[in-house]
Amino acid sequence: MDAPARGRFITFEGGEGAGKSTQVRLLADSLRDEGLMVVTTREPGGSTGAEVIRALLVEGDTNRWDGVTEALLHFAARRDHLVKTVWPALERGAWVISDRFADSTLAYQGFGHGLDPEVIASLYRVAVGHFAPDLTLVLDLPVEKGLERAGARGGAEDRYERMGLGFHQRLRQGFLGIAAANPIRCAVIDASHGPDEVHGDIMATVRARLPVP
Amino acid sequence: MDAPARGRFITFEGGEGAGKSTQVRLLADSLRDEGLMVVTTREPGGSTGAEVIRALLVEGDTNRWDGVTEALLHFAARRDHLVKTVWPALERGAWVISDRFADSTLAYQGFGHGLDPEVIASLYRVAVGHFAPDLTLVLDLPVEKGLERAGARGGAEDRYERMGLGFHQRLRQGFLGIAAANPIRCAVIDASHGPDEVHGDIMATVRARLPVP
Repeated sequence: MDAPARGRFITFEGGEGAGKSTQVRLLADSLRDEGLMVVTTREPGGSTGAEVIRALLVEGDTNRWDGVTEALLHFAARRDHLVKTVWPALERGAWVISDRFADSTLAYQGFGHGLDPEVIASLYRVAVGHFAPDLTLVLDLPVEKGLERAGARGGAEDRYERMGLGFHQRLRQGFLGIAAANPIRCAVIDASHGPDEVHGDIMATVRARLPVP
Repeated sequence: MDAPARGRFITFEGGEGAGKSTQVRLLADSLRDEGLMVVTTREPGGSTGAEVIRALLVEGDTNRWDGVTEALLHFAARRDHLVKTVWPALERGAWVISDRFADSTLAYQGFGHGLDPEVIASLYRVAVGHFAPDLTLVLDLPVEKGLERAGARGGAEDRYERMGLGFHQRLRQGFLGIAAANPIRCAVIDASHGPDEVHGDIMATVRARLPVP
């Protein structure tokens, strides 16, 4: 199955508590107001099969899987998400906004856990091929502030949150490194401000990078 | 994590109803009688995490996953199985006998479903590395006879059994092709005879190929 290229694919990346899900919703509302067809989704998950795999990844012991197994599961979920949700929506002309995509695997499993980036690149070629987001918004804020926000959220999906401060600091540097290495695709957004101000910055970036019809 | 090489790793391969689980048990009994430490296991599965992934693969709609997603899930389960069960057992000096291993992925997803063999080779490099079985016993019998035996078994794990005669014929030719291409590692066993006769052939092959201490 090959990737179509009708609509636009926008991904949000960043550590825990950066406000990604709020910003996904605000961006979707604004784009809908401009008359666009918009689909919002998330990773891991975003399709029936991928949500089942998500449960294996976000719950349970922090050392439940070794780094390679975890990357394989993330790319299995990602493939299902692309085939069942993202590619059909783009084909219909929708703009698809995803809370996380492949940069999260490189940041969490690569920079966070020290998995060989070549392993992640191999899996990307197998599961995603030559497809990539049109725009990736990296929401950046200090680690302590993000974990404080994420902790207030509660819930059972805290396997990654529990992974220690050093891990989350490598994660933040990983995301910033990915953005610096892919300046045409990525933009770093200061997420330490309030939701409305962050949304304003995001809209300015989207207008500058992607011509809204 | 790298593969150890103390004990021996023997895998059974073949289509549905070839008698693999019976022959795994008979071989384990015979090797234990000779004083060897033996671990029997199976794929997909063979470890706590891999058994959870197994349920995603052997139950549900036949077209639940696309070929690439399915291969990713098989290799995720395989990696967990190797890291948690197979490699630690070999390290302790045990002989490990597995009901299915990577040849099944090449036969089912590659020959059966037409997935690019290069995808499977990439995933093998990521998940398994340079490790391989010391001996692979391919149990061969006519497709109709195998499906008849498998059907009599019953149960919910019949997602692959339900995949049509053409699929199972490609599968059989796939396994025979893999054995022909890997004659040092693989041996084809005629599985159309009774269990005791098949076991006798297997023991003769094991003695000829692997020096039992």
